[in-house]
Amino acid sequence: MVGFFPPTGTITVDQIYVHYQVPVAAQRKPLVLVHGCCLSGKTWESTPDGRMGWDEFFVRRGFPTYVVDQASRGRSAADTSAIVQVKSGRAGSDKLPDVFGAGQESAWQIFRFGPEYPKVFPGMQFPLEAQAEFWKQMVPDWSRALPTPNPTVPALSELARKLNGAVLVSHSQSGIYPFEAASIDQRSIAGIVSIEPGACPKASDDMSIYKGMPILVLWGDYVDQHERWAGRLKACREFASVANRAGAKAEVVVLNDVGLPGASHMLMQDKHSLKIGAWLADWLDRHIAK
Amino acid sequence: MVGFFPPTGTITVDQIYVHYQVPVAAQRKPLVLVHGCCLSGKTWESTPDGRMGWDEFFVRRGFPTYVVDQASRGRSAADTSAIVQVKSGRAGSDKLPDVFGAGQESAWQIFRFGPEYPKVFPGMQFPLEAQAEFWKQMVPDWSRALPTPNPTVPALSELARKLNGAVLVSHSQSGIYPFEAASIDQRSIAGIVSIEPGACPKASDDMSIYKGMPILVLWGDYVDQHERWAGRLKACREFASVANRAGAKAEVVVLNDVGLPGASHMLMQDKHSLKIGAWLADWLDRHIAK
Repeated sequence: MVGFFPPTGTITVDQIYVHYQVPVAAQRKPLVLVHGCCLSGKTWESTPDGRMGWDEFFVRRGFPTYVVDQASRGRSAADTSAIVQVKSGRAGSDKLPDVFGAGQESAWQIFRFGPEYPKVFPGMQFPLEAQAEFWKQMVPDWSRALPTPNPTVPALSELARKLNGAVLVSHSQSGIYPFEAASIDQRSIAGIVSIEPGACPKASDDMSIYKGMPILVLWGDYVDQHERWAGRLKACREFASVANRAGAKAEVVVLNDVGLPGASHMLMQDKHSLKIGAWLADWLDRHIAK
Repeated sequence: MVGFFPPTGTITVDQIYVHYQVPVAAQRKPLVLVHGCCLSGKTWESTPDGRMGWDEFFVRRGFPTYVVDQASRGRSAADTSAIVQVKSGRAGSDKLPDVFGAGQESAWQIFRFGPEYPKVFPGMQFPLEAQAEFWKQMVPDWSRALPTPNPTVPALSELARKLNGAVLVSHSQSGIYPFEAASIDQRSIAGIVSIEPGACPKASDDMSIYKGMPILVLWGDYVDQHERWAGRLKACREFASVANRAGAKAEVVVLNDVGLPGASHMLMQDKHSLKIGAWLADWLDRHIAK
C-alpha cells in the first residue's frame, strides 16, 4: 500500500511491456508492432469506433503478433525519481524530465486529420465521430527525456532475437527504431515495415546492414499538404534508393498508389484499416521468407 | 512527431484503459480485474515465471474478463501539465504531483515475500526465481496525486453499468474501489471480490447499499506476521460482521483455511495461483447469480 513506501529504493526501468498472441501452428514470421508518439500499444488494438485492430487482424491472418509499449511509456515503467527529488527540494526544477502530453489540437494537424484543427481533409478516413475515444489513447510521452537510441531499440533487438527473427513494424516517432535495431543485429530482423516514420536512416549511413532485407516504408494520404511530412517522405525515398544500391529490398509505398486513398497518419485505425492491413499482409507474404 | 508539439493544448485524463476477452456464449457475469499499488493490469496477465494469468484462466472458465489500468497509470493517461509548468518555471516545485515508483526492497516486505528484504517466509509461493520479471511490472503510481474517490471508481461504476452488472475484483490499493463503486450505483455491482484490500469500508459506514450483495474479502498467508496487514484483516472482519447484520452476504476467507497456504500478497501470481483461481471460480459459481 502507498503509505508504506519510503521515498528510496530500487526500481527497474528501460524494459518494454509486450503483449502477444500466437496462432495455433503459425507458419509466418512474428510481427512486432511499435506505436508512435504520445501513444501506447493500444494503437494496434480495437479502433476508437470499436472495430477490430491490427493486433487481432494479423493473428487471424496467421501471424504471431507482439504489441509493445515503448520504454518509459504505458505499462513500461518510467523513472520518476527526478520528480520526487525536485518535489522534495533535493534537486532543482531543471532536473525534471522533459515529459509531455500531446494536445489534441496539434495532434489533429500532425496526424493529418485535416490542414488544421478542426478542419478535415476531403475523403479522410479516420473515424472522427469517435475522436473522444482516440484522445483517451494518448499517454504521457517521455521520449524526449531518454537517450539515443531510445532504450526501446535494444529491447526490440532482444525481442527479435528471442523470436528467432521478427518483422518490426514501427509507426511515426518509432519509425527509425527497426533500422536502429538492425544496426545492433541485422540477422534477427526478418524485415522492416516503417509506417510514416519520423525519420528514415540518412542516405549517408552505412547501408550494408540492410543487404537482402525486405523493407517497406508506408505512407498515407495528404502528405504533400504537410510540409514536414512531405520532407520526410522525400528523405525516405532517397534512403530507399541508396539502400537498394547496397542490396536492400526497400520499397516506399503511398497507399493512394495502391488504390487506398484517404489514409490519415493513424492509418491502422482508419475506416479502411483492415483493407490496408490486408494489403500489408499480402505484401508480407510476398516479401518475407517463412 | 515530438518536435511538432507545442507545450499547450487539450489532453484527456481520468479515463481507464480496459482490455477484455469474452468467451463464446458466455453464461457467467463479467469479472473486472483491478490491480493494486504501483502496478498495472499486467498483474493479471501471464505470471513473472511465464504461467497462465488469471485474465486467461477466467476466460477459459467461462467468465467475460475485463482488465483495467487505473486512472493515471499504465495505458490510462496521467496529467503531466504540472511537470511541464514547473520545469518551465511557470509554477513552483510544490505543485509537482506526488508520483512515485515503489522500491523493490520495501515492496518485498509489503507483498509479504518475507519479513524483510531479502528474507523469505517458509513455504511462501511467490515465484521469487522470476522476481526480476516481476520488478519490471511496477510502474509509476499517481494515486497519491489524485482526488478521493480515485477517478478509477466512477469509471468502474460506468463500466459495470455498461456490462449490465459485473463482479468487481480489486487488489490491495484498489481494494476499497468496488465498495466505493457500489455507493455510486449498487445495482450494477453483481458482487465484490476484494483481495487483501488496503481498507474495507468502515464499520460506521452506511451498510444498506450492500444488502443482498455477495462480497468476498480474500487473504493470503503470513498476515499475522505483518502488523499493518493484520490490522486490516481484523478491520475487514468487523466490516463483514456489520454488513451481514444489514443483509449483505459477506465472507472473509484466509486461503490457509481452505487448504491453500503459502499465498503472498501477489497471490494471483503465486505458484499455486491457478489453484487459488479455481477456488475463486467455484466461489463465484456458488455465490453470483448468472
